[in-house]
Amino acid sequence: MQRHFSGDKAEMAARLRKVEGQVRGIARMIEEDRYCVDVLVQIAAVRAALNQVGLSILRSHTRGCVASAIREGDGDAAVEELIDTLMQFLH
Amino acid sequence: MQRHFSGDKAEMAARLRKVEGQVRGIARMIEEDRYCVDVLVQIAAVRAALNQVGLSILRSHTRGCVASAIREGDGDAAVEELIDTLMQFLH
Amino acid sequence: MQRHFSGDKAEMAARLRKVEGQVRGIARMIEEDRYCVDVLVQIAAVRAALNQVGLSILRSHTRGCVASAIREGDGDAAVEELIDTLMQFLH
Amino acid sequence: MQRHFSGDKAEMAARLRKVEGQVRGIARMIEEDRYCVDVLVQIAAVRAALNQVGLSILRSHTRGCVASAIREGDGDAAVEELIDTLMQFLH
Repeated sequence: MQRHFSGDKAEMAARLRKVEGQVRGIARMIEEDRYCVDVLVQIAAVRAALNQVGLSILRSHTRGCVASAIREGDGDAAVEELIDTLMQFLH
Repeated sequence: MQRHFSGDKAEMAARLRKVEGQVRGIARMIEEDRYCVDVLVQIAAVRAALNQVGLSILRSHTRGCVASAIREGDGDAAVEELIDTLMQFLH
Repeated sequence: MQRHFSGDKAEMAARLRKVEGQVRGIARMIEEDRYCVDVLVQIAAVRAALNQVGLSILRSHTRGCVASAIREGDGDAAVEELIDTLMQFLH
Repeated sequence: MQRHFSGDKAEMAARLRKVEGQVRGIARMIEEDRYCVDVLVQIAAVRAALNQVGLSILRSHTRGCVASAIREGDGDAAVEELIDTLMQFLH
């Protein structure tokens, strides 16, 4: 079985746990009727944190799965899947 | 005291609780070594959900705080703050 | 007749003329088979420049048309249109 | 010499020529004081078109340069450069 997140797994999961806490904090801000702009700034911060996690995963995916596929002569499908995934990030 | 999220408050908090659950699910996917592309698709979904919440807040903020400021002749500072916030969303 | 871009009109048109030149330069880079990453960096620069122009227009639109509509008690439709437009920018 | 855009070169250059025309059209809309929201819709359309061109270039870059580097055992630097470029697209 191929391991997808080997080295960085614990770190990435930790970053997502932090994001989870940030989202919980934003829900609380709304319940406490905090100033909208402060809430929006927090939402933008969570988006930026998710982009960072997404890029880390893309990096290990390209280095791992995509590179393996390319070395085994089966790269085109892997690259196509990669581009399809990126398209969802540009939305 | 001005209430910022009146009508939609419960709904927006509920949507963020759902986002919180999605982020927890993504952390678990990483810990379970799930396929990277599946993780990335989930991250893109959370981004889209956060954009929706952000737009809802922008809507009530513009209708509420910004509109009040404009009616009271003090709109320019409110619009400037709104644009600054939007800039963070285009990043 | 309401003027939409009064003060900044010449400046915004000039920025777009510059963007137009950048895009022409990118087409040329492709025709000359320049290194892909250099081309992508230029495309990202044009995206950023377009975001800036878009935010400038949003600013004058909100200060002008949206503020007028709010003062005349007709703000909700204008804010709704504004949010719909923003949604397209988050895609 | 490695050709970067072989097959799709003419098509990509043609799409950028079209984007160039769209940008020129937006500059004209501003000079003619057209309704801001119509201008913003056109800017969003250009952004989307640029994203499409960017993804096409990413696809051929990953299939071409990055895949070659991986096959020659020199993939890590190429993947790193790819991720750095993507980061600029998420901004």
